[in-house]
Amino acid sequence: MASSSQWQRFQSYFLDYRDLGFSLDISRMKFPDDFFEKMQPKIDKAFGAMLELEAGAIANPTEKRMVGHYWLRYPALGPTAEIRKEIEDTLQRIKRFAEDVHAGKITGENGKRFEHVLHIGIGGSALGPQLVADALGSARDRMDIHFFDNTDPDGFDRVFEKIDDLLPQMLVVVVSKSGGTKETRNGMLETEAKFAAKGLQFPRHAVAVTGVGSDLDRQAHDNGWLARFPMFDWIGGRTSVMSAVGLLPMALEGFDIDNFLAGAAAMYKRTRAPAVYGNKGSTDQHAYVQQLRDGVLNFFITFIEVRKDRRGERFDVEDGITSGDYLEGFLRGTRSALYESGRESITISIPEVNAFNLGMLIALYERAVGFYGSLVNINAYDQPGVEAGKKAATKLLQLQKQVSEKLLPGRGQAAEEIARAIDADPEDVFHVLRHLATNNPQIKLEPAEEPADDRFSFEEER
Amino acid sequence: MASSSQWQRFQSYFLDYRDLGFSLDISRMKFPDDFFEKMQPKIDKAFGAMLELEAGAIANPTEKRMVGHYWLRYPALGPTAEIRKEIEDTLQRIKRFAEDVHAGKITGENGKRFEHVLHIGIGGSALGPQLVADALGSARDRMDIHFFDNTDPDGFDRVFEKIDDLLPQMLVVVVSKSGGTKETRNGMLETEAKFAAKGLQFPRHAVAVTGVGSDLDRQAHDNGWLARFPMFDWIGGRTSVMSAVGLLPMALEGFDIDNFLAGAAAMYKRTRAPAVYGNKGSTDQHAYVQQLRDGVLNFFITFIEVRKDRRGERFDVEDGITSGDYLEGFLRGTRSALYESGRESITISIPEVNAFNLGMLIALYERAVGFYGSLVNINAYDQPGVEAGKKAATKLLQLQKQVSEKLLPGRGQAAEEIARAIDADPEDVFHVLRHLATNNPQIKLEPAEEPADDRFSFEEER
Repeated sequence: MASSSQWQRFQSYFLDYRDLGFSLDISRMKFPDDFFEKMQPKIDKAFGAMLELEAGAIANPTEKRMVGHYWLRYPALGPTAEIRKEIEDTLQRIKRFAEDVHAGKITGENGKRFEHVLHIGIGGSALGPQLVADALGSARDRMDIHFFDNTDPDGFDRVFEKIDDLLPQMLVVVVSKSGGTKETRNGMLETEAKFAAKGLQFPRHAVAVTGVGSDLDRQAHDNGWLARFPMFDWIGGRTSVMSAVGLLPMALEGFDIDNFLAGAAAMYKRTRAPAVYGNKGSTDQHAYVQQLRDGVLNFFITFIEVRKDRRGERFDVEDGITSGDYLEGFLRGTRSALYESGRESITISIPEVNAFNLGMLIALYERAVGFYGSLVNINAYDQPGVEAGKKAATKLLQLQKQVSEKLLPGRGQAAEEIARAIDADPEDVFHVLRHLATNNPQIKLEPAEEPADDRFSFEEER
Repeated sequence: MASSSQWQRFQSYFLDYRDLGFSLDISRMKFPDDFFEKMQPKIDKAFGAMLELEAGAIANPTEKRMVGHYWLRYPALGPTAEIRKEIEDTLQRIKRFAEDVHAGKITGENGKRFEHVLHIGIGGSALGPQLVADALGSARDRMDIHFFDNTDPDGFDRVFEKIDDLLPQMLVVVVSKSGGTKETRNGMLETEAKFAAKGLQFPRHAVAVTGVGSDLDRQAHDNGWLARFPMFDWIGGRTSVMSAVGLLPMALEGFDIDNFLAGAAAMYKRTRAPAVYGNKGSTDQHAYVQQLRDGVLNFFITFIEVRKDRRGERFDVEDGITSGDYLEGFLRGTRSALYESGRESITISIPEVNAFNLGMLIALYERAVGFYGSLVNINAYDQPGVEAGKKAATKLLQLQKQVSEKLLPGRGQAAEEIARAIDADPEDVFHVLRHLATNNPQIKLEPAEEPADDRFSFEEER
């Protein structure tokens, strides 16, 4: 396995945050010894940019917004008293709301405790809560959680099947920053209809997490939903897990949100500037920078080791050997075998999977992404391209209406003919027609030899 | 969106298997028009190699084995009468066993019907069944299924927590081709102990899927397990989903295994030689070859469209518009937006997610991998490297024993000191020590300034 020079290298590039139980090993990455020295000017620049962001610089030029996810775990860093107060207030309100739900002070219409959560969101409004539920969830959670994370009818039905009997004691959390996200709105509308079909009043089950003053915010207010929590203007979806987006479901599930934030704060503090890294200087500081360097990205592995095998009782599968010893053996064995065949790896170790350590890991990766962005001159907080797909989709839905109106009883028409009539792209029309013919029983397909020549017509149902 | 030349290209490179409801669109991949013509000699060679495999050529030189996963769905292709018979017999036995379990003819110790399945395997022995359960599973399944897919104590505990009350009516399927896979064995031992702790007799719940004559096979026989199903010598883990490995859990869950095999057979038939592709000649035939070309691999997207939105009732989220229309709009919109920014894509369409169509998709990807392997001279069925990690792991477990024996009461020793005493690698010893100190309360860690200088000792528990 490792030679004695590798043992030296390991000692140089093994970073251990004793108080956090956290360690990071970059010794199996093949950067030269002068790498960090050479990178120093860029590193300094990136740290400078980070401090500017923390102080409230505009980081998202497309939406003209500040980027403040680190304020969430470190309210003292917030650039104004108002921001600091709204962070603290929201946190307190989330905790109180979850306590009241658990205590049965806030109940369903039948006066029974809410026992389940349906979380409706997409992208950053669902991924963070899903990660947390997956990492920390167990059969002992205060409430179980289910997700709608796209506008997928079959997906809705699969979840509805599972929760059908649970609706009377179901709390529904609807998350959309703009309040107009179609995927989320569709999931909400389908859920609303499902509640109505059971004679249940949706507003008495519903909670909104959204920008203040958004459509969703107004709707929740006007219809008397159980509660509304703000999604701050300066939090992007991808970094929202420590805002109400992530904290509300966490608190409902019964996870320790204070420790989650504390873990993130601890990691943020350590990754805030070189000087806090301790006596190893710049060697260890930017471990994860290397991890993210362009060109290396596709070729190395990150192991995340959880040192504590289990909380339950020890069980020996052989004399003195546990399943956990095997797992550790496979981790180290795989790492060695890969290294021998030229594959680099980073190994991160945490003591166990809990709220604090999960907060730490998320904060580390958030920092790494932002920091790496600065290094390679990519703004990690701007997303001008996201709108393009949405616009194209909206155009296609408009096209669907136009195409539907052109379909005639009896006389079948091919995609190209309809496309010419409405001045549209024939390929788009072709797909719209196939989609309609599959899902609308009134629209008939008459097959031709070539798919493009298939003819479509509209037949009134008798 | 698409120009008129794109509409031409779409028509040329849109493949539609009408009878299967399957289509494949490679028009948004940027290969030149003479690509397939130029590739023809290589394509012919690859098809030749495929036919040799089907006829029983040795494809796995490391293990000296034939590769026959296509025989499973096409027993008539099997090279010998014996092979054809064992495929058919196993299929019939699987169906009968599942029927008997569902009918309550084979029951738990308490005479009650088995209602749940715990599937224990790793890699190909778990991934296929997990894919199938995820794709086809619903609240209406005949039996629900849980998985152990690694030697992860915390993972075991999370599953045990969920199924704790279900054990009396739990059927346990243990899958290991060699019968000696440690991850699987560890999961089995932990399960056995859990059953024993509840006063339940494990053999009366257990089924083995393993190579005939393996350790696991013998153990299952000697202890009177409920049943044993063979894992054929000529099936690799990665292509085992249509052997007993995948079919047994599928049948238990109540899925239609005949249709699953029929879907795979239909796709295999169509992808077996150029001549079966119909009137478009070689243009469409090797659609997926392009998908897999080296260098392009990282840069394109495969969309898999399910044309039927849902089986349940239609629900309009706007006038005449459903959630499914939105989903289709986002698919097409995303595809267009990506294409406009130079991203290529392949779009596969299937009518709905069912056993037949899933079988088709799996067969397509299996074929694509094998075929692509032939094209680029990589044997997709050989895996000489897999053993390296296992060997290194075993070495590490031996090292753990040696290190444990060297630890003394009172006098703490550092990793390097112990490593020197047993002539081992200090980095490995360091990790073993940390792992032991975390999980064994008798082993104490005395921290030093640098992690490498930490001292470890053994203290008898009082």
